[in-house]
Amino acid sequence: MEGKKKRNVIVGQSGGPTAAINSSLAGVYRTAIDRGYSKVYGMLHGVQGLMEGRYVDLSEHIRTGLDAELLKRTPSAYLGSCRYKLPEIHDNQEVYVKIFKILEDLEIDCFIYIGGNDSMDTIKKLSDYAIVFGSDIRFVGCPKTIDNDLALTDHTPGYGSAAKYIGTSVKEIIRDGWSLETAKGQVLIVEIMGRNAGWLTGAAALAKGEDCDGPDAIYLPELPFDVDKFVKKVQEVLKKKSSVVVAVSEGIRDENGVYISELGNSVDYVDAFGHKQLTGTARYLCEVVSEKCNCKTRAIELSTLQRAASHLASRVDILEAYEVGGAAMKCADEGGSGQMVVIERTSDDPYASSTAVKDVHRIANDERLVPRDWITKDGTYVTSEFLTYVRPLIQGDVAPIVVDGIPRHLFVPGFQDLL
Amino acid sequence: MEGKKKRNVIVGQSGGPTAAINSSLAGVYRTAIDRGYSKVYGMLHGVQGLMEGRYVDLSEHIRTGLDAELLKRTPSAYLGSCRYKLPEIHDNQEVYVKIFKILEDLEIDCFIYIGGNDSMDTIKKLSDYAIVFGSDIRFVGCPKTIDNDLALTDHTPGYGSAAKYIGTSVKEIIRDGWSLETAKGQVLIVEIMGRNAGWLTGAAALAKGEDCDGPDAIYLPELPFDVDKFVKKVQEVLKKKSSVVVAVSEGIRDENGVYISELGNSVDYVDAFGHKQLTGTARYLCEVVSEKCNCKTRAIELSTLQRAASHLASRVDILEAYEVGGAAMKCADEGGSGQMVVIERTSDDPYASSTAVKDVHRIANDERLVPRDWITKDGTYVTSEFLTYVRPLIQGDVAPIVVDGIPRHLFVPGFQDLL
Repeated sequence: MEGKKKRNVIVGQSGGPTAAINSSLAGVYRTAIDRGYSKVYGMLHGVQGLMEGRYVDLSEHIRTGLDAELLKRTPSAYLGSCRYKLPEIHDNQEVYVKIFKILEDLEIDCFIYIGGNDSMDTIKKLSDYAIVFGSDIRFVGCPKTIDNDLALTDHTPGYGSAAKYIGTSVKEIIRDGWSLETAKGQVLIVEIMGRNAGWLTGAAALAKGEDCDGPDAIYLPELPFDVDKFVKKVQEVLKKKSSVVVAVSEGIRDENGVYISELGNSVDYVDAFGHKQLTGTARYLCEVVSEKCNCKTRAIELSTLQRAASHLASRVDILEAYEVGGAAMKCADEGGSGQMVVIERTSDDPYASSTAVKDVHRIANDERLVPRDWITKDGTYVTSEFLTYVRPLIQGDVAPIVVDGIPRHLFVPGFQDLL
Repeated sequence: MEGKKKRNVIVGQSGGPTAAINSSLAGVYRTAIDRGYSKVYGMLHGVQGLMEGRYVDLSEHIRTGLDAELLKRTPSAYLGSCRYKLPEIHDNQEVYVKIFKILEDLEIDCFIYIGGNDSMDTIKKLSDYAIVFGSDIRFVGCPKTIDNDLALTDHTPGYGSAAKYIGTSVKEIIRDGWSLETAKGQVLIVEIMGRNAGWLTGAAALAKGEDCDGPDAIYLPELPFDVDKFVKKVQEVLKKKSSVVVAVSEGIRDENGVYISELGNSVDYVDAFGHKQLTGTARYLCEVVSEKCNCKTRAIELSTLQRAASHLASRVDILEAYEVGGAAMKCADEGGSGQMVVIERTSDDPYASSTAVKDVHRIANDERLVPRDWITKDGTYVTSEFLTYVRPLIQGDVAPIVVDGIPRHLFVPGFQDLL
C-alpha cells in the first residue's frame, strides 16, 4: 500500500455482547486515527446493518478522551450486533457484490470485525472474495467472546471480565447460603452460559479461596452429563455440608447429546446460526433434586448479567481488548487481510501477554474446548491447571465512572433510535 | 446503671441477609469494646441458635482493624441468621425462662438484635418479659432489611446497597438488550425481591439517566396487578421501541390477592412466619407475553445476588449500618430497652442523616409500604419523589479488599462448621 493515500476504515461488532467488546472498538478507533485515516465508520448491527446502509461516523461518538474512557466501560455492543451468516460465495454472489459496492462507495481501505467464531467466518469469506475478485480492501478480525472458545488464541477479550463476574457472584451466592438456619439442606444450582465450551462455568471455581470452599461441584458441557450420578453427588455433599452449591453449564447434554434443558419444559428457539437458546437447565435439575433428595432447591441463572456487568470488569481484560483492537487496525493498515489478532501468553507468573496475527482460515468455525485433563477425572470440577490459566485474566478493575450513584455509559442522544 | 460493673454483650442477626448487616455487627462490636464491656458474644443463627447454646466470642473473629474492614465487606449474616418466631409470653413461658437463663449464665447486660420486622418482634417480647419479670438486661433492636419496610425509620441499612445493585444491574441488562439485531422485539422481565413493599422494585428506576431510558414499566406489589393491562402496556411499548424491559416485584398479586407467581406452576413453600417463597413471577409473565404478543421473552431473576452483592455496596449504606450498630449498643449501654434505632433524614441535598431511638412496640410487625403518591397514577412507574428519596442512599462505594482478583470476606478457619 506504499504511496497510496489512506482512505477510510469501517468497524463492526457481531455476535453476543461482552463487557470488553467496546474497549476493542475504542482501540480500533484510536489506532485508525493515529495512523492517519480520514474517517472511521461504525456499521450498525454488523454486516446485516451495513447491507441496509446503516452506519455512523464514529468521530461523532468518540469525541473526547472522556468519551473513549466511557466507551471502554460501556457493556453490550455499542454499535449493535448481529448474528447474520454470510452465504457461501458460490451460493449467493449478490450479497458480496452489494457489500463491496457499499464499501467502495465509502472509500473503505480497512474492514475490522470484532466478534467470535461466526464473525471470523464473515472475515474469512469477505477476504476470500476480495482476493478472488481483486479488491484491495483488507479484512481483519478482532476476537471477542465471553465463551473463550476461539482457536489459536490463548484467550479471548470478554472472557476475563465474565470470569471475574462469575467467580465473584458465585462466591457471594455461596456466602449467602451460609446464613439462614432455614436454608440448611438447601441445594443451589447456578446456571452459567456456554453452549459447548466450559470456560465460563469452570470460572465458578474462582470463588474458591482461603475464605470460601467454592462450589461443591462444577459440570462442564465438554463431558456427557449423567443425571443419576449428579443426584448421587448432591446426596453425598448434603451428608457433609449444610448447604450445597453446584455450577452447571447451560449446555450440558446427556450421553445421547440431548440438552438437559430440553428435558424440562422450557421453550427453546433457534438463531440464524442454528444455535438453540438454552435456559432452564438449573431449573430442571432443581426439580429432579427436589424430588430425589427431598430438599429445598433454588435455581439461579446468571443470565445476561454475566456478559454485561461492566461494573465488575477485569482490568487485564479491558486493556487487552483495547490492545487487540489496536493490533487489528495495525494489521489491516500494514496490508494484512484474512487475519485475526490473537493473544499469546508469554508468562503465567508474572502474567504477560502480547498480540500476534493468525490466518483466519485456521480459526473460523473451529471451537476450542476445555482440555479433558483440565477437568477432574470424575468430571465434577476443574483442575489447578484451569485455575492457573484463568486467574491472571481476572486481575484488577476498571473503576466505573459513576454519576449519581450509577455507572455512566457512553451515549449520544438519539443514537438508540438508530439501533 | 451508674456504679454497676459492666458485664457482657450479646449480639445476633436475624431474617434475610443483606450486604450491610455485617457492618452493623462491626459497629456493635466496636462500640461495646469502646464502652468497656468485657466480652461481646455473637449468637449463631440468632435466638434459635442461642437457645441451643450456640454462640461465639466475637473477639476471636474481629481480631484486628483489618478484620473489621473485611467484616464490613462480607455479605450474608456473618453469625448466621434465623427466622425463628418467639411464642407469645402467655402461651409458652418456658422458652423465655430458657433464654434468660442462658443470658444470665453468660452475664449479659445488653442484647442487640440486628434484623427486620420479625426481629423487632423478638426484641419487643424479650424486653416485655424483662420488665414483667424484673430482669435488668436491656434489649435493643438494630434495623436491617433490604426490603426497607420498617416503620418509623427513614430507611433501613441494607436497602441502599440492594438498590444500587438493582439500579446498576437493570441498567446493564437494558444496555445489553440494545445490542443484538436478533433481540429486536424482545421483552425482558426482571423479577425483583419484595413481598409486600415495592422499595426494591422501584429502585429499578435508578437505571434511568442521561444515558439510559430505564425500564419501560415498573410494577410494585402495593397495587393490584392486572395481567391484561400489563400485556396492553407491553404491546404499546413494543410499537415504539426495539426491546422492552419491565421490572416486576416477586410479590405482585391480582385483584383477588392471588400472587402472580402462583398462576404459574412453580413450587412454593412457606417459612416459619407464614411467608411464601415467591419466584417464577417473571417466568409466568414471559409465558403470557410470549403467547399474547407473539414475541421473544427472557425472564431474569436478580435472586439472592441483590442482597449479597457486597462488591457493589453503597458507601452511604455501609457507613450508616455501622453507625446504627454503634447507636444500638450506645442505647443499651445507657439503659435503653425495648427500643430500636432509627435513621432520620435531616436533609435531602446535601444528604444528611442522624440516628435516634424509638419504642419497638411502635415498629414490630408493622410494614411501611411505598406511598401511593410515589407511584404514578397508572401504576406503572415510580415518581420523582421516589427517586429523590432513594438517590442519596446509593451514593459512593466501599472498594472490595481484593485477593487474587476476587473480593475477600471475613473468615475464621473452622467457623463455617459451627454454622
